[in-house]
Parts: sequence; C-alpha cells; structure tokens
Amino acid sequence: MIKVFCLNSVTKEISENCPVADISELRKDPKNVVWADVSDPTSKDFEALAEEFDFHHLSIEDCRNEHQRPKVEEYSGYYFLVLYEASLVGDDDVLELRELNIFLGKNYLVTVHSRPIRAIATAHRLWSEWLDQSKVGAGLLAYLLIDAIVDDYLPLLDIISEGMDDLEDSIFGKWRAEVIEEIFMVKKKLLYLRRAITPLRDVFNTLLRREQPIFPHETHVYFQDVFDHLIRVADNIDTLRDMLASTMEAYLSVSGNRMNQIMKRLTSISTILMSATLIAGIYGMNFLFMPEIKWRFGYVFALLSMVGVALALYAYLKKVDWL
Amino acid sequence: MIKVFCLNSVTKEISENCPVADISELRKDPKNVVWADVSDPTSKDFEALAEEFDFHHLSIEDCRNEHQRPKVEEYSGYYFLVLYEASLVGDDDVLELRELNIFLGKNYLVTVHSRPIRAIATAHRLWSEWLDQSKVGAGLLAYLLIDAIVDDYLPLLDIISEGMDDLEDSIFGKWRAEVIEEIFMVKKKLLYLRRAITPLRDVFNTLLRREQPIFPHETHVYFQDVFDHLIRVADNIDTLRDMLASTMEAYLSVSGNRMNQIMKRLTSISTILMSATLIAGIYGMNFLFMPEIKWRFGYVFALLSMVGVALALYAYLKKVDWL
Amino acid sequence: MIKVFCLNSVTKEISENCPVADISELRKDPKNVVWADVSDPTSKDFEALAEEFDFHHLSIEDCRNEHQRPKVEEYSGYYFLVLYEASLVGDDDVLELRELNIFLGKNYLVTVHSRPIRAIATAHRLWSEWLDQSKVGAGLLAYLLIDAIVDDYLPLLDIISEGMDDLEDSIFGKWRAEVIEEIFMVKKKLLYLRRAITPLRDVFNTLLRREQPIFPHETHVYFQDVFDHLIRVADNIDTLRDMLASTMEAYLSVSGNRMNQIMKRLTSISTILMSATLIAGIYGMNFLFMPEIKWRFGYVFALLSMVGVALALYAYLKKVDWL
Amino acid sequence: MIKVFCLNSVTKEISENCPVADISELRKDPKNVVWADVSDPTSKDFEALAEEFDFHHLSIEDCRNEHQRPKVEEYSGYYFLVLYEASLVGDDDVLELRELNIFLGKNYLVTVHSRPIRAIATAHRLWSEWLDQSKVGAGLLAYLLIDAIVDDYLPLLDIISEGMDDLEDSIFGKWRAEVIEEIFMVKKKLLYLRRAITPLRDVFNTLLRREQPIFPHETHVYFQDVFDHLIRVADNIDTLRDMLASTMEAYLSVSGNRMNQIMKRLTSISTILMSATLIAGIYGMNFLFMPEIKWRFGYVFALLSMVGVALALYAYLKKVDWL
Amino acid sequence: MIKVFCLNSVTKEISENCPVADISELRKDPKNVVWADVSDPTSKDFEALAEEFDFHHLSIEDCRNEHQRPKVEEYSGYYFLVLYEASLVGDDDVLELRELNIFLGKNYLVTVHSRPIRAIATAHRLWSEWLDQSKVGAGLLAYLLIDAIVDDYLPLLDIISEGMDDLEDSIFGKWRAEVIEEIFMVKKKLLYLRRAITPLRDVFNTLLRREQPIFPHETHVYFQDVFDHLIRVADNIDTLRDMLASTMEAYLSVSGNRMNQIMKRLTSISTILMSATLIAGIYGMNFLFMPEIKWRFGYVFALLSMVGVALALYAYLKKVDWL
Repeated sequence: MIKVFCLNSVTKEISENCPVADISELRKDPKNVVWADVSDPTSKDFEALAEEFDFHHLSIEDCRNEHQRPKVEEYSGYYFLVLYEASLVGDDDVLELRELNIFLGKNYLVTVHSRPIRAIATAHRLWSEWLDQSKVGAGLLAYLLIDAIVDDYLPLLDIISEGMDDLEDSIFGKWRAEVIEEIFMVKKKLLYLRRAITPLRDVFNTLLRREQPIFPHETHVYFQDVFDHLIRVADNIDTLRDMLASTMEAYLSVSGNRMNQIMKRLTSISTILMSATLIAGIYGMNFLFMPEIKWRFGYVFALLSMVGVALALYAYLKKVDWL
Repeated sequence: MIKVFCLNSVTKEISENCPVADISELRKDPKNVVWADVSDPTSKDFEALAEEFDFHHLSIEDCRNEHQRPKVEEYSGYYFLVLYEASLVGDDDVLELRELNIFLGKNYLVTVHSRPIRAIATAHRLWSEWLDQSKVGAGLLAYLLIDAIVDDYLPLLDIISEGMDDLEDSIFGKWRAEVIEEIFMVKKKLLYLRRAITPLRDVFNTLLRREQPIFPHETHVYFQDVFDHLIRVADNIDTLRDMLASTMEAYLSVSGNRMNQIMKRLTSISTILMSATLIAGIYGMNFLFMPEIKWRFGYVFALLSMVGVALALYAYLKKVDWL
Repeated sequence: MIKVFCLNSVTKEISENCPVADISELRKDPKNVVWADVSDPTSKDFEALAEEFDFHHLSIEDCRNEHQRPKVEEYSGYYFLVLYEASLVGDDDVLELRELNIFLGKNYLVTVHSRPIRAIATAHRLWSEWLDQSKVGAGLLAYLLIDAIVDDYLPLLDIISEGMDDLEDSIFGKWRAEVIEEIFMVKKKLLYLRRAITPLRDVFNTLLRREQPIFPHETHVYFQDVFDHLIRVADNIDTLRDMLASTMEAYLSVSGNRMNQIMKRLTSISTILMSATLIAGIYGMNFLFMPEIKWRFGYVFALLSMVGVALALYAYLKKVDWL
Repeated sequence: MIKVFCLNSVTKEISENCPVADISELRKDPKNVVWADVSDPTSKDFEALAEEFDFHHLSIEDCRNEHQRPKVEEYSGYYFLVLYEASLVGDDDVLELRELNIFLGKNYLVTVHSRPIRAIATAHRLWSEWLDQSKVGAGLLAYLLIDAIVDDYLPLLDIISEGMDDLEDSIFGKWRAEVIEEIFMVKKKLLYLRRAITPLRDVFNTLLRREQPIFPHETHVYFQDVFDHLIRVADNIDTLRDMLASTMEAYLSVSGNRMNQIMKRLTSISTILMSATLIAGIYGMNFLFMPEIKWRFGYVFALLSMVGVALALYAYLKKVDWL
Repeated sequence: MIKVFCLNSVTKEISENCPVADISELRKDPKNVVWADVSDPTSKDFEALAEEFDFHHLSIEDCRNEHQRPKVEEYSGYYFLVLYEASLVGDDDVLELRELNIFLGKNYLVTVHSRPIRAIATAHRLWSEWLDQSKVGAGLLAYLLIDAIVDDYLPLLDIISEGMDDLEDSIFGKWRAEVIEEIFMVKKKLLYLRRAITPLRDVFNTLLRREQPIFPHETHVYFQDVFDHLIRVADNIDTLRDMLASTMEAYLSVSGNRMNQIMKRLTSISTILMSATLIAGIYGMNFLFMPEIKWRFGYVFALLSMVGVALALYAYLKKVDWL
C-alpha cells in the first residue's frame, strides 16, 4: 500500500493521500516535498515506484530482497538507505529488527517496509510540528526519521543493561547456574544490534567527511547529530559487550570456586568418615588377644576415639581451609 | 577445452563455438564482445590463450598453478581475477571450493577453470536475457559472472547458520558431548570461506575508491553492487564466527556445569553410603560389653539409624544444593 | 544558577557576578572574555543561554539530556564539548563521573553542569594567577579547565594501581578467593574511565592535525599539552587493563593449582585410610582357620602392618609428589 | 669469499669469477650487470665491499651484525634488503632460518650470507635461462632471487599443514595427551615464519604504492608478483595460526571431556562397590537378634542382594549417562 | 648539577666544563655545538635552563614532573624528547627504567635526568671518536645518545628470552608449579618495556615520513637507523609476548594433564582397594551357613581372590589407560 504526502514548502501545507500517479508531476515542482510511504509492498507497488521515481533496477532489487545489511548507497540523483528499527517484544524480551528501506532524493523521500515501523508515525508528527522553525526539505524529513529510529536503540540498551546488573547479582549474590544461558542470549542480542548499527556508523562517517557534502549545508548539522547518536549507540553496545565478557569470566571463576569449595568439603567429610570407619574396622577384627575388647568401657572408648579422631581431623581441615 | 562466444553488440547476436584461431581477429573489432571459456585446460590451451590474447607470462603462470589466493591484479590492457565458487557436497556437507580464473579485457572475457563452475551457466543465461535492457560490454558480463558466484555464498551460509542453531539446541537442550567436534568442523568451514571472500572484498574496496575508476561509468554501479554483496557475505561470515565462538564458550560452560553437577551428586552419594557403613562398622565391633547388641530390636534400631542418618544427610545436602 | 565573570583583557580586570542579561552586550566587545558558569540548570537558564549566546538548538538539546558521550562538536561560531570529571567517593572507592558541558566561542566560555565540578574552582584560581604572563583569551581559559579535569585522572589511576598491587599480593601471597569480585569491580571502573577518556583523545587528535587549526596559534601548544595528558591517561588505563587481565589469569591459575593440591592431598589421605581399613577388614573375616587370629601378638602385628602400609604409601605418594 | 659475475647485457654473455678489484671499473659501464656473492664474509671482504661499491657504513654495519629483522631500506643509490630463507632440517623438522643480505643498485647486486643459501643457485640458473626473453637488469636478478626464497616457504607450510591434520586426528581419533607439546612446537615455528615474512610484506606494500616506483616500469610487474607471493605466504601462515588455535581449543575440550568421562566412571564404580560393602557391613554386625543370620540361604540372599543393588545402581547410572 | 660541553665544529675541539652562564653566548655562534647535561636537577637548574635556552614553560614543567610517557614534542626552535633507559638490576633481575629528558635544538642538546644514565657516557665517548669522519651537529649527538639507549634494550631482551626457554623446560621437562608466578613477572616486565618503546616507535614513524624532514638531510639516515632499531626492539617484545602467551597456555594444559593423570591414578587405586575391602566385608558377615568359612584354605582362598580381583582391575584400568 502506498500513501503519498506532499508538502508545499512555501505555503507550509501538507496534502495527504495524493494519488500515486501524480507523483512524477508533483516532484517536478521544486517547491514540493513528496513523501511516499510504502507498507507491505506488492510487485505492482514496486513497478509504480520504478516508474514514478525512475529508480535504478538494482536498488529496487535490494528493496524486494529482505535481509539486506544496513547501508547507504549513492545512485545518480538519490540515496538508497537500509536501516533496522529495533524493539524487545513479548515477556522474554525477544529482539525484533524491522527493516526499513529509504530512497532520499532532492525533494522526495520514499520509505518501504513490510512490517509496521513506529518511527514513521513519530517522524510524521514532528514534521508538522517543525514546519515553522526550519527549512523543511526532504533531508530534514530523512533526519527526523533516521533520528527516531536511532534514538529508539538507547532505551532498549538500558533494558539490556539492567538485565546485566541482575545477572551480576546472580553471580556474586544468590548463585544460579542457569545464568550461563541468559548470558548467551544477551550476547546474541548485542551481536544482532551491533550488526544493525555499526555499518551505518561507518557509512555516515565516510559521508560526512567528504569534500562535497552530500547533504545541503543547513541539514549537515542534523546528520552530524544522527552520526553522534549512532556513535553513542555503537559505543554503548561495545561497552555492554565488554561488560558481558567480564560477567562471563566472573561467572566461570565464581562457578569454579563454588564447585571447588563443595568438592573440598565433600572429600573432607569422606575422609573424616573413613577415619572413624577404620577404628570400627580395627575393633571388628577377630583376634583372640585384643585387650580393649574385654574392657568394661571398651565400647565407649572406641566410640569416643572415633569422635575424637573426627573432631581432630575436622579442626585440622578447618585450619588449613580445606573444609 | 576452449569454447568461444562472440557477441556483436550492435546486432545483439551471439555466435557460439567460434574457432579459437579467430579470436585475435574478432577482438580487434570494438563492436564485438568475446568470451572464451577454458575448462580443464591443457598446455596447448594455455599457449593458445597467450598467443591470441597476448597475456603476460606471469598471469598465465598463476593460471597454471592452482590454489592461488583470491585476487584482482592489473596488467597492461586487462585485469586478472581469481575467485572461488563454494558449495557443500555430500551427506556430510563437505565444503568444496572451486577455483575460477578470469581475464577481463576491454571487450573480452576469458574464464579458466579445471572443475565445472555453476556460475558460468547462470551468467551465460542472464547474458542473453539482459541483451536488450543494457549496454552489454565485457564488464557487464564479468559482473553477471562474479555476482552469480558471490550470491551463491548466501544460501550456503544459511545452511551453516541453521546447523549452528542445532548445535545450540544440543547444548542448552538435549546434551551431546560430541558437539565439540561439529563446532570444530564448522569453524574450519568458516575459516576457508573467509579466506575465499575477504581478500576480494578488500581488493574491490580499493578498486572502487580509485580516482580513475577501472570500470566504465555505466558498469561502476554494478561492481558497487558486487562489492555490497561481498561485504554482506563477509559480514555474515564474521557474525557466524562470533556466534560460533559464543557457542563454543557456552558449550564449555554448560559442559563444566553438567560435570560439576554429576561429581557433586556422586560424591554426595558416596558420603551417604559411607556414613551408613560407619554405623554398620560400629555394630560389627567385637566388644564384650555393647548394650545394643543384646537389645531385642538392636538390629532394627541399627538399620533405622542408618536410614535416619542417610536421610538427614540427604536432606542437608539437598538444602545446600550439593546434591 | 548562572554566574557570569567578565575579563577585560586590556586592563586585566575580572568583574564577577555580571547580570545575565548583559552577556550579549559584553561579548560584542572583543576585548572582553566572558565566562558563564551554569550550575544545576533550569529550563529558564537554558532559554537565557540560547538567547544571549545564540546557540544552535541541537547543542542546547545535548546539554539538557544528560549522559552524552564525551565529545567535541563544531557549530558555526563555537565548539561544544562534553567532558567527565572523575573521582572515587566513599569508603568503597565508588567511581563517580560528573558531566561537564562546555561552549567555547571566540571570546566566551560557557560551562554547564548539574553537579559541582572541582576543576571549575581550580581553573578560576589559575585564571587570575596567569593573567600577567600570557595572552588570556577564552581558549586559554578552556585549556585551564580541561587540563584540570584531565590531570585529576592521574592520582585516581594511581589509587587503582595500588589496589591492584594488593590484589597481586592476595594471589601470590596470602590467598583469598574473594579476589575475583574485586578484580571484577576494578575492571568495571577501568571500563568506565576508558569510555570517558578515549573518545576525547581521538577527537583532540583529529582537531590538532587539521590544516586550519581551530585554536589560535598561541594556544595551540596548550591544547597539544592537553592532548599529551589525554594520551598519558589513556595509556595508563590501557596498561592497567592489561595488568588486570594478567592478574585475572594468574588468579585462575593459582586458584586451580591450590585446588589441585588440596584434592591430591585429600584423595591421597583417603587412599591411605582405605589401605588400613582393608587390613582391618581382612582380620575381621570369620574364617575358622586363620592362623594370625590365634597368635599372641596378632593384634599388635595387624596394627603395625596398618601403620607400615600407611607409612609406605605416604612415603611413595610424597616421593611422586602427589601428597 | 667473494665471487663476482658480470653480465654484458648487449652481448648477453656472463663472465664468471671476475676479480674483486675490477668491480668499481665494471659497474661504471651501464651495459654491465655485476653480481657479487659474498659467502661467509670476513672483515676484509666487508672493507672490499665498502670500497668497491661505496656503501654507507650503517648498511655495512647491519650486514656485519646478524639477526637483523627482515627489511628493505633505501640508501642514496641503492637499496639494502634483509631476507630469511627457511627450511625444515633433521628428523624433527627443526625450523632453520638463514639470513641473506642484499644490496640492490642500478646495475649491480650484492648478496651477503654466512650460511649457504639454496636460492642463490636457483637464481643463478634462471638468470642464464631468462637471458633471451627479457630485459635482464639487476632488478630482474633481484626478482629471481627473492622469488626463489619466498616460493620456498610454500612447500614448507604444506608440511606444517599436513602435520596439523595428524594432530587433529590424534585429538578426535586416537587420543594422545602429548599432542600439547607438538602444538606448542608448531606454534613457535609459525611465529618465527611470520616474523620472517610479514615485515617484508608490509615494506613491499609501501614500496609498490609509491608515486615514483622504485623499480623500473618493466620490472614493476615482477615485484608485484613477489608481493602477491608474500601475501599468499603470510595469509597461509595466518590461516595455519587460526587453525592451530582452533586445534588447541579442541584439544582442551576433548581432553576435558575424556577426563570427565573417566572420573564419572571411576566414581560411579566406587559408589557401586560402596553400596555392596554397606550390605556386607550390615550382615557383619554382631546383634544377637538378626533373623537373616540364621536363615538357610541367608548368605546367598546377602550376596544376591549385593549383586542386585549393584546392578540396579549400574542401570540407573547408565540411564542418567553418568557411567 | 649542570655540566656543559662545547664543540667547535670547525676546529673539532671539545671544551669541557664551560660555565652555565656562557651558554646563551656560546649557542649564538652557529659553529658551536653545546651539550648541557643536567643530572639530579634542582629548581635553580631549571631556572637556569629556562633562561639560557629560552624553553617554553610547558616543556620545563614536563621535565620537572617525572613519569612522563615516552614522547617527542615539537616546540618552536627545538624538540623535547622523553626516553627511558632500561636495565635489569639485582639478583632477581628487577626491571629498572630511568627517565631521560632531551631538548634538541639546532646547535645544542640538553639532557636532564635524576638518575645516572649509562648511555650518556657512551655517547660522550663516541662523540669524540666520530669527530673526524662525519658532520657532527647536535642531531648526530642526539643520534648517538638515543641509539645507545635503544640498543641497550636488545641484550636485556635476550636475557628475558633465555629465561623463557628455562620456563619452557620447566613445563615440558622437570615440572614446577611455581612457574606461573615467574610467567606473571616476565609478563609485567614486557608490559613496561613495551610502554617505554612503542610510543617512540610511533612518533619516529610520523616524524620520518613528514614532508619537511625535521632532521637535516645528512642525519636523516641516522634517525632512520634509530627507527629501524626501535622497530626491531618493539618486534622482539611483541614476539616475546606472543611466546609467553603460548607458554602460559602450554603451562595450563600440561598442568591440567598432570593433575588429571594423578587424579585418575588415585581414584583407580581407591577402586582397587575398595573391591578388596568388599571381599573382606563379605567374609566378615556373620551368617551361620557360609560354606567357605569352614574350608581348610578358605582364608587363603579369600586373600587370593582379593589379589586376583585387584590384579584383574589393575590390568583392566591399565588397558583402558585410566591408571
């Protein structure tokens, strides 16, 4: 489904639901800023896009095939961007990455996505609000959209960060062996988030350092801002990964220590029991001449010596810290 | 065996099976695009190539010696490329890499390979189909060929990725100790795939950023597309490697945990048995004065105290989570 | 709360507590250097800043939202910097990072912070002291401020370094298993410190290598000095991280060795006890024809053979270094 | 000992064993290509070199002191190279690296080495063979020499690679614990090989990318070829290192698994024996009232219950996979 | 204490112990090369330096504060360098790094150090020796000094390398568990050495590649030589670090293997003892009807069956390689 918005940048009026067939007409007038939002695109939609905007068939191809890597590509007359919106869904905080394809031309913006993108609503709202205070070309619209997507990563990383504090408590506080599976799951999430962000950071870095800036001078500062947020998100992800590696290491060490502690204790107890058993074994021997056997308190003596040996061993093992 | 195709780029007609001796004649006409496909080359084939195309003896040498690294080299008048086509063969999904040497000149393309290359059929088919819609020089033909090879890596990586999900299930779900050997095998596959792709990615990166682009302007966007796919494949491989490293780490931790669990339990059971054995040992002593011996229910009392001590120990070990 | 200082760079007089509303007037005179220190800023303060200094709304936005990453951004007419002052607070040496936002213009400096920053007092004091000996534009004031912040990291790293020597003693000297948690905490501190310093180092590196230096020639050498200190701090942090990784590795090895030692000993003792128990078991058998049973010194003989076997085993295990 | 060859590049004749004192005379004629091979050099040889070729005393110094790092240095009028020829000697495949110093001037080449270098014979042979087909300046001679050295690394790496397949078999097939020492030895070899190759790769990379190529245009393609081989060797070494790291990891995991398996089994057997011992202990108690004692088949009953308990435990442990 | 040497580069005469106050006079004459060596500097010495040489107060500041990082800084008219001389002192080969500050001007050199620097004597000696053969400006003097310091690292690294061979012998040959602490100590030494060398290497790299070389043409080749030695030292350190990491890994593996071996053996022995004990326990039961009890050779039979079971178990465990 294609929804077309058209802003007359002089009268500052936005006409909604323009017919698709008018697009090529509308975008001829440099005063207009055209935004075509294509959700759940069909083959016919792609054909309409190719016709109205004259896109290169390779970029249409990339649009059709999902699971592109995040990127910014330069075609003659427009840029083609692939971004991913991220959110945690369900009770298990499963990570969902929703692909958004953007065609950014001089005075038009085309967004293509097969799943609903929250940032589109946000950008649409801010677009109307910002109409007065700034020059509102297609570049600014793209900024609002990309910024909304990138900024959404930060609260998500905060949730992951809090989850990691819990993991840490589980390791140094109330021990749970299953922590390992949770660490693994967080690691995977961070890996996917990193894949969705770092290529964009690197591309924006290249684009912004170019001799001839691709974005007009007024919007340059806005894309600098997006770049700054991209770095921040990428830095946060890297820090979380570093922390997770440390947490994993701590888990392994603490796990090893706990196990060692338990084995030392169990083996110590075995040793104590065996020494008592040895005494019992000695007085169970069938020699005819064993003086203790006939003592009045031989039995009590034997029991006491068992207790005595056990206590002595216990004290010794405690002292050398094996128990 | 050398098969020669010749396209007249004006009439858009492809003549198949041209005689090898005509090549130097055909490629003199700039309207022609000549494709010579050399499969299972003999010494005579190499001599014919050197003669008809006037290739530098170093590049012919590289062609003769198999197991070159993937590369793009610039000779005066042509480029020499080495690529690897990958596929998984047999029931065990053994990785097979088949070498393809390409000589790319202004209006000719020479492909040399000792094993059958699937991408050649694909490129041949697409070549005829694309004849109408684009300028079809040797560059475009090279694009079709390289793109077919690079794109073939993606489904292969998907298979490996699915295999890794299985490994993960084996670790956190139904445990199998042999997982370690499978992880090792996947690691080797990824290592070989990386070796086949990353050098190409780096070379294309350099080639595309040059001041004077080596490919004519119209085909530049196509090679940009190949480069994009190379990055995507390389990124996928790196992600899989990262995931595999995490999987390995998880395997080791879970393996350690399982072992610890078992040893704790076995040692706990030993301790319980030993405490019962101690009681049996005590009542096996031969003291003349042991009141319990003569009790009516001494035996039952002893058995019960064994059971009691065992249960108490069991409860305690359970509580401190050692069992 | 906004406090405004104004230096007349000709008369070298500093007027304190100038009214906020005069700022735009004061900074018009190039002889004046204006310093506005905004602590615990309110919405009204931000509006005053935007009005008096004509800052871009994106930089004001960054100022409002805490937890920016450390950075230097160039806006038309001024630079916007984010830095973090670090200190260890409380008995547990908890790391505290306090954000400081700086706007650096041609002849003005604005500092914004929601928590008290020690370096501001230091910079204020040095400012008056340096009045005579150097050209004291806004750049020099910024230098004094940034240098005070960066230099404060060094004693802090010394404290961490001393703490690491203690950890090392705990590993190779008087063993404590809890060292692992302390190592983890130091690791986190170093991670946060690195995040606060390395982005600045990288930005300063870029700024100082530019063709047109952003700082006037006289102050360039001062910012070179700040950069040198940033490298030194960053190098120190990296060295400490390397050391900590080695310490961790040493901890794991020594921990493993200690545990192995203990398990070897406990198991050795078990073996010795079991061999004695076996002898007791043998003489506890009920065979009618056991010659030793009737010996006069059979009992003593049995006890002596137990001791003998135990001693022999002990000597053997000692010799092969298992005990 | 100095052996001097002189090629007249017009008549294509090589005069062997020219007197050392004539060198400065010979090299004045640009038609001549002079090759002085200095084996096992004495102080007098070095003085002769310095005099006849006018080498800078720093490069002579480097020649005298063995164990230089591989490098290419530019002096006025000539290049000074240090390379290492590698081979595996003896039954244990000990790695031997033999240093070769090369002075490469416009029309002369000086090779200095204290141990015999195989590549010198190879280069000498090829030199005569190539006389006809190419322009044969000193650059080409240097190419033949360096190429012979670099190409010799490949079969050596193949031997190491085969050795690693054996290691792998030892890990997943017929286990040998000593594999660890062999892995360590291979690691050391790869480390030394890498040290001998990667600095050269990096230097050639810089030399070949220079604006003014240091080698004349015709020989440039040859040095490109050497560079390609250097990359290939370096890539192979890196791949082998990666593989070795994986092998090591696999060794540790498999070793751990095997040990765990054995400990689980031994402890399981202990537990089974202990449960039988407990039953024996019970019937060894001396209670007067133990009904089983007087049963006709009490003894058989006891033995059977021991076997029964042992079998039940065995079945259970087998089921939960602890045995 | 300040010692001033002055060389008249025409007469090639060195006057020693010139008065400090004459320095500014002496260095005005471009024929003179002035070397001021300041050992154990006082505040007055620093003031004298600042006055006579007109140094920037920031470089004087760096000189005063010890523990600077190694660096080369450019001030107007001179360079400021910080280097560290290294040596191993005492029986324990403790690493000592002694700081040396150098001011290098057009025709003067100032060395500042609080501890005695051996390289100063070496440089002083070589200075007089080289007087005849080369142009001996301040640059060459700096070369002699820096080269003496850098070259001193190599024998030191040889000592560390030999120590590492010993460590290796301790791991694969005669085992010592304490090796771990020694590895840790070597690691720390290498870390400190790396910190002292790598920043210099990086700075020299930048300085030598500059468009306008900072050192005059004749001395450029000398600084190239210093740079070469810096790379060599840095490469050696990196190789040693790599080797140490491998050694550590080998230590851990061998340590694990040894421990496993011991535990397997001890547990196997336990199992053998327990099976014998079980037989003793069986014949210790009190059943009235036990036929073996009354056999003439029952006792011998029991002992023999114990030995038999033990031998059978021993043979089995030996066969499956658990003992």
